[in-house]
Amino acid sequence: MYYEAVHGSTVSWATKPYAEINSIGERSGSVLFVPIGSIEQHGHHLPVSTDTLLVDAVTSAAAEQADAEGIPALVTPTLWSGFSPHHMPFGGTITLSHDDLLDTIEDVADSALEVGFDTLCLVNGHGGNAALVSCAVSTIGDDHPDVEVIGTTYFDLAAPFVDDVRESERGGMVHGGEFETSLMLHLYPELVDQERLEAEPLVEPYDHGLKDMFDGGPLTVYREFDEYSETGAIGEPELATAAKGEQLFENLCDELVTIARQTQS
Amino acid sequence: MYYEAVHGSTVSWATKPYAEINSIGERSGSVLFVPIGSIEQHGHHLPVSTDTLLVDAVTSAAAEQADAEGIPALVTPTLWSGFSPHHMPFGGTITLSHDDLLDTIEDVADSALEVGFDTLCLVNGHGGNAALVSCAVSTIGDDHPDVEVIGTTYFDLAAPFVDDVRESERGGMVHGGEFETSLMLHLYPELVDQERLEAEPLVEPYDHGLKDMFDGGPLTVYREFDEYSETGAIGEPELATAAKGEQLFENLCDELVTIARQTQS
Amino acid sequence: MYYEAVHGSTVSWATKPYAEINSIGERSGSVLFVPIGSIEQHGHHLPVSTDTLLVDAVTSAAAEQADAEGIPALVTPTLWSGFSPHHMPFGGTITLSHDDLLDTIEDVADSALEVGFDTLCLVNGHGGNAALVSCAVSTIGDDHPDVEVIGTTYFDLAAPFVDDVRESERGGMVHGGEFETSLMLHLYPELVDQERLEAEPLVEPYDHGLKDMFDGGPLTVYREFDEYSETGAIGEPELATAAKGEQLFENLCDELVTIARQTQS
Amino acid sequence: MYYEAVHGSTVSWATKPYAEINSIGERSGSVLFVPIGSIEQHGHHLPVSTDTLLVDAVTSAAAEQADAEGIPALVTPTLWSGFSPHHMPFGGTITLSHDDLLDTIEDVADSALEVGFDTLCLVNGHGGNAALVSCAVSTIGDDHPDVEVIGTTYFDLAAPFVDDVRESERGGMVHGGEFETSLMLHLYPELVDQERLEAEPLVEPYDHGLKDMFDGGPLTVYREFDEYSETGAIGEPELATAAKGEQLFENLCDELVTIARQTQS
Amino acid sequence: MYYEAVHGSTVSWATKPYAEINSIGERSGSVLFVPIGSIEQHGHHLPVSTDTLLVDAVTSAAAEQADAEGIPALVTPTLWSGFSPHHMPFGGTITLSHDDLLDTIEDVADSALEVGFDTLCLVNGHGGNAALVSCAVSTIGDDHPDVEVIGTTYFDLAAPFVDDVRESERGGMVHGGEFETSLMLHLYPELVDQERLEAEPLVEPYDHGLKDMFDGGPLTVYREFDEYSETGAIGEPELATAAKGEQLFENLCDELVTIARQTQS
Amino acid sequence: MYYEAVHGSTVSWATKPYAEINSIGERSGSVLFVPIGSIEQHGHHLPVSTDTLLVDAVTSAAAEQADAEGIPALVTPTLWSGFSPHHMPFGGTITLSHDDLLDTIEDVADSALEVGFDTLCLVNGHGGNAALVSCAVSTIGDDHPDVEVIGTTYFDLAAPFVDDVRESERGGMVHGGEFETSLMLHLYPELVDQERLEAEPLVEPYDHGLKDMFDGGPLTVYREFDEYSETGAIGEPELATAAKGEQLFENLCDELVTIARQTQS
Repeated sequence: MYYEAVHGSTVSWATKPYAEINSIGERSGSVLFVPIGSIEQHGHHLPVSTDTLLVDAVTSAAAEQADAEGIPALVTPTLWSGFSPHHMPFGGTITLSHDDLLDTIEDVADSALEVGFDTLCLVNGHGGNAALVSCAVSTIGDDHPDVEVIGTTYFDLAAPFVDDVRESERGGMVHGGEFETSLMLHLYPELVDQERLEAEPLVEPYDHGLKDMFDGGPLTVYREFDEYSETGAIGEPELATAAKGEQLFENLCDELVTIARQTQS
Repeated sequence: MYYEAVHGSTVSWATKPYAEINSIGERSGSVLFVPIGSIEQHGHHLPVSTDTLLVDAVTSAAAEQADAEGIPALVTPTLWSGFSPHHMPFGGTITLSHDDLLDTIEDVADSALEVGFDTLCLVNGHGGNAALVSCAVSTIGDDHPDVEVIGTTYFDLAAPFVDDVRESERGGMVHGGEFETSLMLHLYPELVDQERLEAEPLVEPYDHGLKDMFDGGPLTVYREFDEYSETGAIGEPELATAAKGEQLFENLCDELVTIARQTQS
Repeated sequence: MYYEAVHGSTVSWATKPYAEINSIGERSGSVLFVPIGSIEQHGHHLPVSTDTLLVDAVTSAAAEQADAEGIPALVTPTLWSGFSPHHMPFGGTITLSHDDLLDTIEDVADSALEVGFDTLCLVNGHGGNAALVSCAVSTIGDDHPDVEVIGTTYFDLAAPFVDDVRESERGGMVHGGEFETSLMLHLYPELVDQERLEAEPLVEPYDHGLKDMFDGGPLTVYREFDEYSETGAIGEPELATAAKGEQLFENLCDELVTIARQTQS
Repeated sequence: MYYEAVHGSTVSWATKPYAEINSIGERSGSVLFVPIGSIEQHGHHLPVSTDTLLVDAVTSAAAEQADAEGIPALVTPTLWSGFSPHHMPFGGTITLSHDDLLDTIEDVADSALEVGFDTLCLVNGHGGNAALVSCAVSTIGDDHPDVEVIGTTYFDLAAPFVDDVRESERGGMVHGGEFETSLMLHLYPELVDQERLEAEPLVEPYDHGLKDMFDGGPLTVYREFDEYSETGAIGEPELATAAKGEQLFENLCDELVTIARQTQS
Repeated sequence: MYYEAVHGSTVSWATKPYAEINSIGERSGSVLFVPIGSIEQHGHHLPVSTDTLLVDAVTSAAAEQADAEGIPALVTPTLWSGFSPHHMPFGGTITLSHDDLLDTIEDVADSALEVGFDTLCLVNGHGGNAALVSCAVSTIGDDHPDVEVIGTTYFDLAAPFVDDVRESERGGMVHGGEFETSLMLHLYPELVDQERLEAEPLVEPYDHGLKDMFDGGPLTVYREFDEYSETGAIGEPELATAAKGEQLFENLCDELVTIARQTQS
Repeated sequence: MYYEAVHGSTVSWATKPYAEINSIGERSGSVLFVPIGSIEQHGHHLPVSTDTLLVDAVTSAAAEQADAEGIPALVTPTLWSGFSPHHMPFGGTITLSHDDLLDTIEDVADSALEVGFDTLCLVNGHGGNAALVSCAVSTIGDDHPDVEVIGTTYFDLAAPFVDDVRESERGGMVHGGEFETSLMLHLYPELVDQERLEAEPLVEPYDHGLKDMFDGGPLTVYREFDEYSETGAIGEPELATAAKGEQLFENLCDELVTIARQTQS
């Protein structure tokens, strides 16, 4: 089921009547967050909606904190289907085409911005969406010259502090590895199958290719995920803990709130 | 936040690892439900996600019941943005263009059906999507000749039994009226503002036009909703009760389960 | 050949010089009808243009009657190619894709409405187009806020009076059955092969599926027509008569004229 | 009204049941003609469907003659809406966008060719469509490597013999001039307003630009027609006669039949 | 490498800073040339960029001459990928789809014209692009009513004087024949493989089909080039000389300059 | 003019006859480079084609070196029009839309890869294209599962060694700054206006935003360039020297050759 009761939440677009949404959007400095996730295989230990759940949780928590500080903020529901053709060989994946996902994000922006928000912040939760979301920032920004249009992939915000908790080597945080599994253990432990914390190490032949979530490299390589991994996961999920997840989660929210604050000047 | 813990649910695509999804989709007689909602103004007493919440709830409950009867069934997350340009004047509405919503539904079907489902059932929750979802049944059906592709707008299933609970005159169940408000009072009472159960009567000049959710008429008329209503709602929400909603909800699930059963022969 | 001389007709867009068209469109209360048909197999006894011929005839007759009553009215040529992928297995069918048919209708509206019509009425003649034409009403209506945009599938207008002539059971009026064959016998008897009035009964497994042209049901099912029928026709054409066709035709025109009248207020 | 009874015609796709169409298309050497016209202003003396009427008549007559010679031939209904943005300022014009007309022609080809025709011949009747129809020959030909795909603009076939009847100077046959008006006087005299045979001479500043229907020049110039003409027509319609039209018509048919014959080797 | 130093050239958009471009475009009578070429097989003796090299050279030389006469003129870089699906069987060919090439030309026009040019002149260098470029003149012209939009296929300008140098029979100037090879020998002799001046005669069964670059005929025929030729070239390249090329080149430039001059009135 | 004679170059697709191209593409380990540039304002001291010239030069030199090492390599002409809507306010810019540039790259890949290359390497030269080129790697990779599809933005390869030459502070290498101007002074000094080495410092309010070409930050911000700079350039071009450019150029080529080598295993 879609809905989790969020009594008292001030930031969910979906659960308000329209007049409340309008009154927030019309305030000076208003910020609209649009989380963008994915439904794709995440190995045997994580649900396919991992990216959607995490980006939704981080964005909502940050928006609530921003709102508590007096920044008028709302969060749309999360776009749960991303761009994941490279995960299709495993099954369990629902992907939009590149063009359709971009069009969808643009449509959401076009209609939501009519309410009067000053800033639109796209928050992406899936590596395969990252370039597309950057493109969306440009196409939406070009179409809405009076709106501040920005975007980020939430886990990129963790670079400055991830080493505080990290135990894995480079390659341990990739897809369903130490990073994502820790966040899931903190937020949705009942959805993590702790008896199947299985993943493979990343083998990437190019010196300039991606070596880790936090060591991207200047070379983009397209490869279907079954060439990388039998389980579908890459990294070291067995090093994940809920405590690490909690610390990462709080830090991630702080970074996103910092961005929200800097839209106010 | 996106996720409501549904411990023990057997039908949520989103909360499973991929291998479980595959094993359900590969079973003989497997049925995939795709709920399609909307985020649009629903007057002052209902949240903008009313259509999304209702179609999600009805579909999930029916799929769980089908699953309990041994029909292999899954439900994707609900497509929460529909086709609602006629609600834009009120604000609070997030609409996709016709083409982009159709493309999105087709993409979801194309990738989800790779898992091997025998039947795809689109379940729509918004009047403005009804024709588009019928079109999607055709375009997807044409592209997937080996899959049984069907679709319905869930509240149309209520025609045979709605009079059992109905107190309003014709026109009392339109947009945020007795029908939808009753379902919301049953399912999400905390999201209904019972102090603002305001709506206007339907004034439709054409004899052949729509007179009620359950009296559609052969003539389609396009009109922005602010020509119909000042509040955004049309009908008699003040006649709504949670008890009516409960009865409607159970009957609706039964009808959808009947359809699921008839896919098995 | 395309053209039938219609000396004295006041409603054919095609056969007038432009200045006459403009002077009609500019009048207060002007109505433009756009008939939308199909070229698709209709069994062995009917020509493939049956839907096109019927919708063209009904619309033209109604528009002439409206014009005679003082309503400024014109009819564009009939869009003769519809959305009929489900008839392709039989041959003889020319179908547009969903997107291209919708785009075409929108283009026709965009350019024709520049003349200044107050109302656009799409009149559809093919079941497979019905949802698409409803969509077109919305997309065109959204693009032309100053025009009244309406649409109907002409045979839906017959529901109130079809039983006056009907002899067949439910299922006798489906595709090339008693209804369409009667109209053809009235209008174009030389195109009906009365020695091959062959069709099959409708077998539809879903309780909620379509049972007859006049018993649609809330469930849309996609099925290629060769799964339903060997001849391509469904229903009871052998019960058709020209007399029934004449009565239906007159009643259908009356209904369409009623709609035209109600655009005037 | 759409239909002119063509008793005994062997070449009209529209008026046959599907099985007859299939049996023609499956024969060796079968040729399918697709006429493409326009609805656009043609001055005060000619109806807006002039291009549609003429290309339909020429193609049908040629196809009948080919059929009489034993060449299996059919003609689809004429695509009556062309690409005519340059005529929009006058009103009375219904134009498709470039992309939508091209897509429509491709769709018609894709579905009609499934019947098994060996040759597809697009026959265009409007100058503004000429380049687009050439493009369509290429895109359809590329998609259908087993079909001979050809195309022509019918009046270009008249170059070798037009001087036999011509009385006007260069510039007298342009848009609604001596050529088209003569054909209309022969075929549809009741649609020609002989009291308003008004047109303007062609004033084209470029030496390399078009000077006449039969003196095209290597330079394409885009200009809305109201920059050329107040009436909308260009040329010398007052020199038109039905006798000229008859001779042109017969010669045009002969040329098209010659093309049909040369597809047989 | 892309760039040839053109010290002192006044007409290359690419090698100027933006402010110089703007100051030219803003002058009264300014003309922007956009050359459109192709990368496609041209037999064994010519490079695949032949069409691109020739149209670029002719256009640049003409624009320089126009500039020298005081006409404010610029040339964009040449669009080097055209529409050449019919050359794909040979390899070495890079083609855009029809729609993508048209969209690209429109985008180039849309952004370049913002600078303020009074005239846009598309100059095409490939037969397979000719119809598409005519279409582009129309679509761009329709979108830019305040700009004079014209277009030509440069070799069509040679019709009046080609016989001055021509030695081949009809069919000797087709694809990599006497005409193109002469121009290449004049402009880029080091790119001509004079030991492989091989080509085949044109065999075109239709009387109305193309017989030579300068005898086009009213019938368009789609055929992959390997049905015409084993080498990929058609015509008589062995008759080509640099002297002929020089004379053709100068005459072609003169014609294009004439067009530029006639935009000034 | 388009062409610079590159006698003896072994890697230019454009200047070869088709059979040579095919024989390279068919070899084991063959690599096709596609450079993607831009035409956009680069301040007063640099030509608008700066990005195109640089990416073309780096890619060609690297491919020649790879070829010299025995790696079968070719380079297509550079796609000279990128995605630069944010530079439009200055003039001098020619941009494609996002969708059209992506489609163009896909078309180039689709046709060029038919020759048989084992690896496709997109090399981008413009920051505004970077995300789009990453997307293209994915869409092309998904469509060509048997080809290794990779991509990079060439200046990202300089991160490890740029500090060897760098004199500017963070923010000195942005748009037309020390980095690009040095490369231009090395490669095309005649196109650099050394009397107008003007640029502004980067002022970026977000902590997470881009601070320099080599300090990107996790936040994407859309802003038209005239909000950043009056001249159009950002950084410290006055610190540029040809010697720095030469060293950077050689190192960049080495990095790209390293990538080419790693495709061979």
